[in-house]
Amino acid sequence: METTTVKAFGTKAADQPLETININRRELQVHDVEMEILYCGICHSDLHQIKNDFGMTAYPIVPGHEIVGRVTRVGSHVKNFNVGDLSAVGCIVDSCQECESCHEGLEQFCNQFPTFSFNSPDKYLGGVTYGGFSETYVCEDKYVLHVPKSLDLAAAAPLLCAGITVYSPLRHWNVGPGKKVGILGIGGLGHLAIKIAKAMGAEVTVFTTSQSKVEDAKRLGAHNAVLSTDAAQMSQYTGKLNFIIDTVSAKHDINSYLNLLKHDGTVVLVGLPPEPLEVGAFNVVMGRKSFSGSNIGGIAETQEMLDFCAEHHITADIELIKVQDVNEAFKRLEKGDVKYRFVIDMASLKE
Amino acid sequence: METTTVKAFGTKAADQPLETININRRELQVHDVEMEILYCGICHSDLHQIKNDFGMTAYPIVPGHEIVGRVTRVGSHVKNFNVGDLSAVGCIVDSCQECESCHEGLEQFCNQFPTFSFNSPDKYLGGVTYGGFSETYVCEDKYVLHVPKSLDLAAAAPLLCAGITVYSPLRHWNVGPGKKVGILGIGGLGHLAIKIAKAMGAEVTVFTTSQSKVEDAKRLGAHNAVLSTDAAQMSQYTGKLNFIIDTVSAKHDINSYLNLLKHDGTVVLVGLPPEPLEVGAFNVVMGRKSFSGSNIGGIAETQEMLDFCAEHHITADIELIKVQDVNEAFKRLEKGDVKYRFVIDMASLKE
Repeated sequence: METTTVKAFGTKAADQPLETININRRELQVHDVEMEILYCGICHSDLHQIKNDFGMTAYPIVPGHEIVGRVTRVGSHVKNFNVGDLSAVGCIVDSCQECESCHEGLEQFCNQFPTFSFNSPDKYLGGVTYGGFSETYVCEDKYVLHVPKSLDLAAAAPLLCAGITVYSPLRHWNVGPGKKVGILGIGGLGHLAIKIAKAMGAEVTVFTTSQSKVEDAKRLGAHNAVLSTDAAQMSQYTGKLNFIIDTVSAKHDINSYLNLLKHDGTVVLVGLPPEPLEVGAFNVVMGRKSFSGSNIGGIAETQEMLDFCAEHHITADIELIKVQDVNEAFKRLEKGDVKYRFVIDMASLKE
Repeated sequence: METTTVKAFGTKAADQPLETININRRELQVHDVEMEILYCGICHSDLHQIKNDFGMTAYPIVPGHEIVGRVTRVGSHVKNFNVGDLSAVGCIVDSCQECESCHEGLEQFCNQFPTFSFNSPDKYLGGVTYGGFSETYVCEDKYVLHVPKSLDLAAAAPLLCAGITVYSPLRHWNVGPGKKVGILGIGGLGHLAIKIAKAMGAEVTVFTTSQSKVEDAKRLGAHNAVLSTDAAQMSQYTGKLNFIIDTVSAKHDINSYLNLLKHDGTVVLVGLPPEPLEVGAFNVVMGRKSFSGSNIGGIAETQEMLDFCAEHHITADIELIKVQDVNEAFKRLEKGDVKYRFVIDMASLKE
């Protein structure tokens, strides 16, 4: 297959900094969309992958899966995108389209595994897919999103992963008016969960170990913010919440949060702590409670989320950087030193 | 308050056998129903309580909460029970009737805690309630069930706890035609779960560590039975089930069962393992799965369950014993040596 060589930013080994490399994008297929990448968010899973934390990284790796751009070319059968349209790609860029999950619009649960936007087997070129730290992206139109014009493009980029990761469970578990929602952890995911849950009409209570984030949670729109290390504050919420979204990626005590739920409540994990989490039988049996998980969202739901965010004027709080600063950004991300998402201005790749 | 002294079978200490003792039943209140107890099932939680395994036992204790009998007297305001009616009492004999849970018919989640049929603070007489190992029971009509005439009375007794414990989650999680249900463990709860889930129209697969129970599961109506220690058999069910009801009360590996679920599936724990259970983040996040719990059921749902069991000719497989054999029965229960529930013929208490 013919390819186009484009500039990207990636690394050839876990212990090497990211630098400019060349990658190939496939020849445009009849259903493909090519976009010029304008902005790309930096997610903690980019960091995991470049460092090979999951042991599944193929080098060279080009990360980036919060991709916002503008359509530059479309295949002959593409009907819903035109050159010049604002566009976006998130985590999923292909799936089998034949299994029950795909038919239900839950491509994230594709029985054949979805193709992710980077470090995932590339069905067209072999090797692995290369992500959004690059000049262009090419994929089938089914996996490309429309970006509403009213959204700030740079600040919208994190919606493609962090946004859908919290929107999907909030929607799936019917969060809305009259519901009391807890949000555990304020980072890239948590700060968007506050904004989205509030826009859905829920009463939002944030739980954080950091006093400075107690203040920031309120600025972000939380109705209540609780210092989770303060037992007295915590006990005021015993049995009070309908739903808790847990964005913490380190080992932590789930049982304290199950105790905050009313009967039939759910704690939904969206982080991926490496060690198993202990759940006491009484903490789920008494009150018919659930400890659940959720993983990004399907393509249709990602579009729904973008439209919802446009309607409610929701974007991420970001720090815009140049691609040349990405190694420094990863170091700061590792220390949690970002409020709340780095986004790369991809124009800098041309420098 | 005036009381009536009746004969019961209980114990004064954790290390003493049960023997005949006298207890008091309260004077009949205007909403109370008095019943002569005909049969009483023996549940593993009776054993836990007489041995003070939860550290909350008040002695003397009279266990028994799977109570079937016949109405002998009714208070002046009782409209829905007449003398001579078949009747039953399960785990719950009172609740606040004012909280949200009580209003929803979920008395098991009463914010003030329900009054249980034994070893629970007695609002009328002080001390604690005494259970069904006795001649009579007295409680408010709201907590008394009608027993359909077509049910075998002795074999119906275990429905009052074991039956509702499995019926409630099967109903709550919408088990029915087209659903593939796993049942983990075959004992008092599991054997009823097989019968009820099958009657609901689901495809039932049993998981057991015992080859003899593989055979018995099929006799009980399971469509499939899997030896859970056989990895090859287990792997055939990966991603295949919608719902698993987990009746195991010892520490066990939940993750192997989460792996058997399709996306959006749930493992519901109805046992109470004393140690916390480890749940891997990937096992719930991938596939939006849940590890949940369920605890008995409300009064209205217990009546619904009895009517369902009558319609579908479901009762427990029991071994009928005399009350004088109860100490031996508890020893056998501790070893799991019963298929599948001991029921006491309470007429023997008169001997």
